[in-house]
Amino acid sequence: MNKKSKLTRRALLSGTAISIIPITSAAKSIKEGSPSWMTVPGRSFTEYGFPSSQEENTKREIFQPYEEYAPGSGVSMTPLEKLEGIITPNGLHFERSHNGVPNIDSKQHELLIHGLVEKPLVFKVEDLLKYPMQTKTYFIECGGNSFYNSNAFPIAIDRTCGTIHGLISTSEWTGVPLKLLLKEAGVKKEALWLLAEGADAAAMSRSIPLEKVFDDVLIALYQNGERIRPEQGYPMRLVVPGWEGNISIKWLRRIKVTKKPTYTKDETSKYSDLLVNGKTLQFTFPMEVKSVITQPTTNPIPLKQGPIHITGLAWSGLGNIKKVEISTNKGETWNEAKLEGSNEPLSPVRFRYNWAWNGEECTIASRATDSKNNIQPPRSEWSIKYQFGHLYHNNSIQIWRISSKGRVFNEYDDVAQSERWSEE
Amino acid sequence: MNKKSKLTRRALLSGTAISIIPITSAAKSIKEGSPSWMTVPGRSFTEYGFPSSQEENTKREIFQPYEEYAPGSGVSMTPLEKLEGIITPNGLHFERSHNGVPNIDSKQHELLIHGLVEKPLVFKVEDLLKYPMQTKTYFIECGGNSFYNSNAFPIAIDRTCGTIHGLISTSEWTGVPLKLLLKEAGVKKEALWLLAEGADAAAMSRSIPLEKVFDDVLIALYQNGERIRPEQGYPMRLVVPGWEGNISIKWLRRIKVTKKPTYTKDETSKYSDLLVNGKTLQFTFPMEVKSVITQPTTNPIPLKQGPIHITGLAWSGLGNIKKVEISTNKGETWNEAKLEGSNEPLSPVRFRYNWAWNGEECTIASRATDSKNNIQPPRSEWSIKYQFGHLYHNNSIQIWRISSKGRVFNEYDDVAQSERWSEE
Repeated sequence: MNKKSKLTRRALLSGTAISIIPITSAAKSIKEGSPSWMTVPGRSFTEYGFPSSQEENTKREIFQPYEEYAPGSGVSMTPLEKLEGIITPNGLHFERSHNGVPNIDSKQHELLIHGLVEKPLVFKVEDLLKYPMQTKTYFIECGGNSFYNSNAFPIAIDRTCGTIHGLISTSEWTGVPLKLLLKEAGVKKEALWLLAEGADAAAMSRSIPLEKVFDDVLIALYQNGERIRPEQGYPMRLVVPGWEGNISIKWLRRIKVTKKPTYTKDETSKYSDLLVNGKTLQFTFPMEVKSVITQPTTNPIPLKQGPIHITGLAWSGLGNIKKVEISTNKGETWNEAKLEGSNEPLSPVRFRYNWAWNGEECTIASRATDSKNNIQPPRSEWSIKYQFGHLYHNNSIQIWRISSKGRVFNEYDDVAQSERWSEE
Repeated sequence: MNKKSKLTRRALLSGTAISIIPITSAAKSIKEGSPSWMTVPGRSFTEYGFPSSQEENTKREIFQPYEEYAPGSGVSMTPLEKLEGIITPNGLHFERSHNGVPNIDSKQHELLIHGLVEKPLVFKVEDLLKYPMQTKTYFIECGGNSFYNSNAFPIAIDRTCGTIHGLISTSEWTGVPLKLLLKEAGVKKEALWLLAEGADAAAMSRSIPLEKVFDDVLIALYQNGERIRPEQGYPMRLVVPGWEGNISIKWLRRIKVTKKPTYTKDETSKYSDLLVNGKTLQFTFPMEVKSVITQPTTNPIPLKQGPIHITGLAWSGLGNIKKVEISTNKGETWNEAKLEGSNEPLSPVRFRYNWAWNGEECTIASRATDSKNNIQPPRSEWSIKYQFGHLYHNNSIQIWRISSKGRVFNEYDDVAQSERWSEE
């Protein structure tokens, strides 16, 4: 008893202490014999491997708001609460499509560079594969991530961390810097922007300032080592690091160099920010500093009193992460968490914080600060800037509420919460 | 014409120059209309994604020397020449099994810690998931990697980079530091080693000094973000960073703390190094400094004269990578390549070097130096230390020969080479 309370006290006092958690069972009698799977030869080798069938619940959650007439318009979300580390495995990278995943013949596919260039050029995949490449780890976050926590969706669903915040994923991207191709085409003096267009049936397209393109934009051909997946833009996509996800045009087929923005549908009627003063921010490119606790969050198994390992992800489209702080008392006090990962700009870190829960109702939350000293805002501070219904660029602090019975809820799940609390 | 030769000269003079490669076709007439895949809605969302069927040749090569009576004994190799970046996607991580992949029920599986401990302990997966975790990117390389380039296998096969060197893969591993569990069990004073045993039908087991365990050994539960794959040790494996791969016991079921090594089969009759003087090195734990060019290597499509992007991987089990040098003239001169990646200890880097090939027969090779100033040796220097037939710990320099017709061969493929050259 004495030992346990001592450890708990130490964990409470120090956020970084590695506490020894008494959750193991002393092996009083060692089992005789071997488990059944050791008594027969195992299965042979495979050319390409898949997860265990016992992990089939680790999957993307699909949300198709126009399912009946446009099943390819919507999202599938990364199950953040079931994952660890920083990299998202390719099978679970979130999807955002506007008219489905096109079935592109990679041998036929062409990338055209035209507009304000000296010499229009066409590239096939086999051409690009011969160019100097670059490998970088970047997050991609949809401009509409965390839309369930805006006031536009006050509906009761089972909001796991992934179904609220799962429109962010991280990959090691390898590709050709777009500037190499633009230099070859010869950009004309008056050019300041480009239009990038995808080869999906929505011809998804966005305008990008050339300044960003000459900084760090890649034409990605590989994702976590292998050729990119169909739903991620096979055979090639843009990666525009740190900026809202739909600018990283998938299935890239056309780059038109221009003087001004093209004002496409997805940067005018959508993906623009309507302010309380009635004006609209048209181009809000970077995804701002943000963090979210991924564990413990909404779980089928209630928490138990005692040491708890709090962990999650933090990222910024404006730099790298300076610190992540954890509060377990509604923001009264904040303690710094430990950061893991290379912490390169525009690449997430994982944070870890060892805590001890005393069994009383409380909240837990994380707050990130980036290298430009931007601090993740509370939800009230974020939402007050926008008109009712606004849902883009929600980087506000996620608070999770823990009930005295160890259940974890989304603090902002207004409708569902009262029902759930009464269920307990 | 003038422009092209100027670029080539520049690329020749500078290994790091990004040369503009004239492989694109000027778009004289922009195609009218859209490709067929833009005229129909694409496929809908998926819960778990897979690579494009057009990439089905990107697969592990299986080598089962005892296929008839022991199909689960052998390897499958990572196709290094088809991959980019540093991370190996989970579906293509190499496999080395001694009696197949066991079909473990993760809810039943137990890890026992016993031997020289105060209190034997048993852990289920659900117990370990509550412990503080750690995420690190590490390579795992089989002690027998590059065995085809030893003198034990003078056989003619189609030796791609992956089928020679593909027993190395890299993942972001997340798990519980083993020292946490050992501290909880209470290691007795006289203990210096432990035995780790897998739950496969071979009960694969190895001895590990406690000093290493208390340094950096993990019980991994996640690989590149998701729960580890069956062939990688589901539901849990050891990761012993930088050391020969079979010590990273998969399907981990038992840790016995001991005073001395246990001298198991796979550290006595196998995985030991027979020297020319007749003595045997029993424990050669670290995988020493090594590099290999992954592109250009044995390819179906011959190279063309002009700029060529040389790239590959370098790693060391003794530290991180200080430099990688490239020679394109049988080692007469060496030029430093550019390194990519976080370059943390025991994690690989990718190297890149822009070269221009003049169309004449030549060789290309890479040579790595690690942070402890160990330099990757030539093959002759490496092999002279061992008895004929030795194949472990081959970290020697890989030379690729380029014929005047642009075909690329393994320089050490003695039997096959003469036949192939005559075929051209």
